[in-house]
Amino acid sequence: MAGAVDLVLLLFSTFLLAKALGELLQRLRQPALVGEILAGILIANLVVGAFSLRDFLQLTPAAPGDLPNPNVTFLDALADLGVIFLIFAVGLEIRTTELRRVGRLATQVAVLGVVVPLLLGFAFIELSGGNPTEAIFVGAAMVATSVGITARVLREMNLLATREARVILGAAVIDDILGILILTIAIGAASGGVNLYQIAIVAALATVFVLVSLTLGPRFVRHMARPESPTAILKRMRSHNAPFVVALLFCLGMSALASFFQLAAIIGAFLAGMAMAEIREQYALEASFEPINAFFVPFFFLVIGLKVDLEALAAVWPLAVVLTFLAVVSKLLGCGIGARSMGRTSATIVGVGMVPRGEVGIIVALAGLSAGAVTGSLYSAVVIMSLATSMMAPSLLARLFRRLEAERMGPPGAAEP
Amino acid sequence: MAGAVDLVLLLFSTFLLAKALGELLQRLRQPALVGEILAGILIANLVVGAFSLRDFLQLTPAAPGDLPNPNVTFLDALADLGVIFLIFAVGLEIRTTELRRVGRLATQVAVLGVVVPLLLGFAFIELSGGNPTEAIFVGAAMVATSVGITARVLREMNLLATREARVILGAAVIDDILGILILTIAIGAASGGVNLYQIAIVAALATVFVLVSLTLGPRFVRHMARPESPTAILKRMRSHNAPFVVALLFCLGMSALASFFQLAAIIGAFLAGMAMAEIREQYALEASFEPINAFFVPFFFLVIGLKVDLEALAAVWPLAVVLTFLAVVSKLLGCGIGARSMGRTSATIVGVGMVPRGEVGIIVALAGLSAGAVTGSLYSAVVIMSLATSMMAPSLLARLFRRLEAERMGPPGAAEP
Repeated sequence: MAGAVDLVLLLFSTFLLAKALGELLQRLRQPALVGEILAGILIANLVVGAFSLRDFLQLTPAAPGDLPNPNVTFLDALADLGVIFLIFAVGLEIRTTELRRVGRLATQVAVLGVVVPLLLGFAFIELSGGNPTEAIFVGAAMVATSVGITARVLREMNLLATREARVILGAAVIDDILGILILTIAIGAASGGVNLYQIAIVAALATVFVLVSLTLGPRFVRHMARPESPTAILKRMRSHNAPFVVALLFCLGMSALASFFQLAAIIGAFLAGMAMAEIREQYALEASFEPINAFFVPFFFLVIGLKVDLEALAAVWPLAVVLTFLAVVSKLLGCGIGARSMGRTSATIVGVGMVPRGEVGIIVALAGLSAGAVTGSLYSAVVIMSLATSMMAPSLLARLFRRLEAERMGPPGAAEP
Repeated sequence: MAGAVDLVLLLFSTFLLAKALGELLQRLRQPALVGEILAGILIANLVVGAFSLRDFLQLTPAAPGDLPNPNVTFLDALADLGVIFLIFAVGLEIRTTELRRVGRLATQVAVLGVVVPLLLGFAFIELSGGNPTEAIFVGAAMVATSVGITARVLREMNLLATREARVILGAAVIDDILGILILTIAIGAASGGVNLYQIAIVAALATVFVLVSLTLGPRFVRHMARPESPTAILKRMRSHNAPFVVALLFCLGMSALASFFQLAAIIGAFLAGMAMAEIREQYALEASFEPINAFFVPFFFLVIGLKVDLEALAAVWPLAVVLTFLAVVSKLLGCGIGARSMGRTSATIVGVGMVPRGEVGIIVALAGLSAGAVTGSLYSAVVIMSLATSMMAPSLLARLFRRLEAERMGPPGAAEP
């Protein structure tokens, strides 16, 4: 009789707008996610006379110090789940053995893709008169890769089986480990002292978590599904949809565990997905996660768009343009050099795939703001850089893959080695 | 790197507990939903020494006047969506023509199932010294049927195709229309004057909404799917999973519309589901909604359990026991008499199916509390009545259906007509 009104209307209208613009962008041969981000930008910024779409949907963000707006919190929660389920589904399409095969290359890409942006970001702030703490926060934000955006493009275009996709995904895992180290150092620097012992612990725990999950995860999953094994819970459960429920719990549990080890939740989801890949055909897990993803994933991109404040953009655009330029160039250079052995087009694909900073860049900037190390306008500029890199990469990536395909299908003798 | 921690951990632990207890109850030949409600009760009330599960999961409800707890709000939102998707899936299994066939019987069941509880509830409060406003609120809470609980049992047992199930579902729709009328009268009485004109408008709008949806909904859906029709959006959309996305939007849109007409959101979801039933085979819609339901629905039952406060129970149990007794007897009598032509066991099934008051009873009681018409202890007693009726019906219903089956399969000549 009441209660669910606002919520259902909010979900209906945001989902409708995201899907409608996604559909439109697909007809323009662009990735659907660009339409979903645009839907968010539209909701956040559309004002016609006295009518504001953001106010109508009660999505005004809380001022600092205020209690969070429940509608905003709800969409944020759907977005968090959206990227977790997206990356889990990506993991489902890759076995750990396939990831290990690109291990060396992915490590090179990740390390150079961290070092170059960090140095460029740090140097730029230092040279333009910032203090070292500020410089290290901006460096950390330049490092942060948001793999969700690239993963969605790869998935939409059915490209997850390509070598380029695997290198990007492998590099993103390593990038996240290196990223938390740099963020830990930055937070340490802001609070007056870098604790090398603490950083070593964080690094060791995160690495051990990833390695253990990569090794034991698939084995554990195979055991669950084997009828004769003592842990064969899948065959014994009475619940309807037992395999799907277990996969869902595994995904959420591993995400929570990754967060506990200070990694991004999606790293846990990715590891869970790769482990579950062992039994995906047996239980049609991909088909079960399709509807879940169709519902949740658009909210991840919608919420990225919701954070775009065109007024803030007007105030800090020169700084934002420079940061965005540096962010693109540094990842392209770093990752591209790391992947140079793959050939020019493939190396560029890997570089562009690592360009989006998305929600991760924003989280780092927010940590800097909360620590008092980053000014409000620098924070806004980093947010804009994170969003701009996220919005430019998908279309570019789609075009590059089409070029790669053309090169490979090209006239005999003209194909790259 | 952070942000999603609490949320994912909250989801993981509540979902795990709900599914584990659901599995346990199924092994005890009880409906899984009873286990899910028990999981909620456990979370809300388990205290071991200094450890409280509710506090650990940060699920303490806000005090009146306080801002809502975001974790509680989030689970409530999942619960709202859970019952909407559940009832949509129930609608998917029923065509409007099949519902119309039981129309007269369902109307009888609904009307008698409203009149008897209303009179009994009103009389009890009047006779025990309450004022008329209080009496009419309690009467309204006695009327409110929560069809989600019964629908889940019917669905779990594969009984939605039975005549009993259709009568219950049809009666629940009419029951909700009558219920909002009585609630409107009650709120009018509390604010000093019953506006007959307003009540007529509410009744007319709600009835027109239901009748128009029943008539035009299926036609609209068939048109969407027909390749030659100008509104054939399903064939033209490029989005991945277009039919599922359209069904989801239709479900959310109709739920929001029903709320707008002051009906329960689930009535809209039910109407949307019945309309979509026209194309469910063509697009495998049931299979797509399976994973969505597996994720969301348990939260509806978990949240029912979360609202159980064993301490409040201790304070008001004599009143709660009487109210629960009256609530059960009045629906059994009213609906049972309405369905007497179906034979004794079937009439009892229909009566028991209408017994759960669930979240609807709680919403009515809350409206009375907010209007200042109902005292805190009476409110607690109504909440307990709503929960008790919800928890006793499922097992009883399962047993009655087994008896009905035995009667029909029984020795020749022993079967009821």
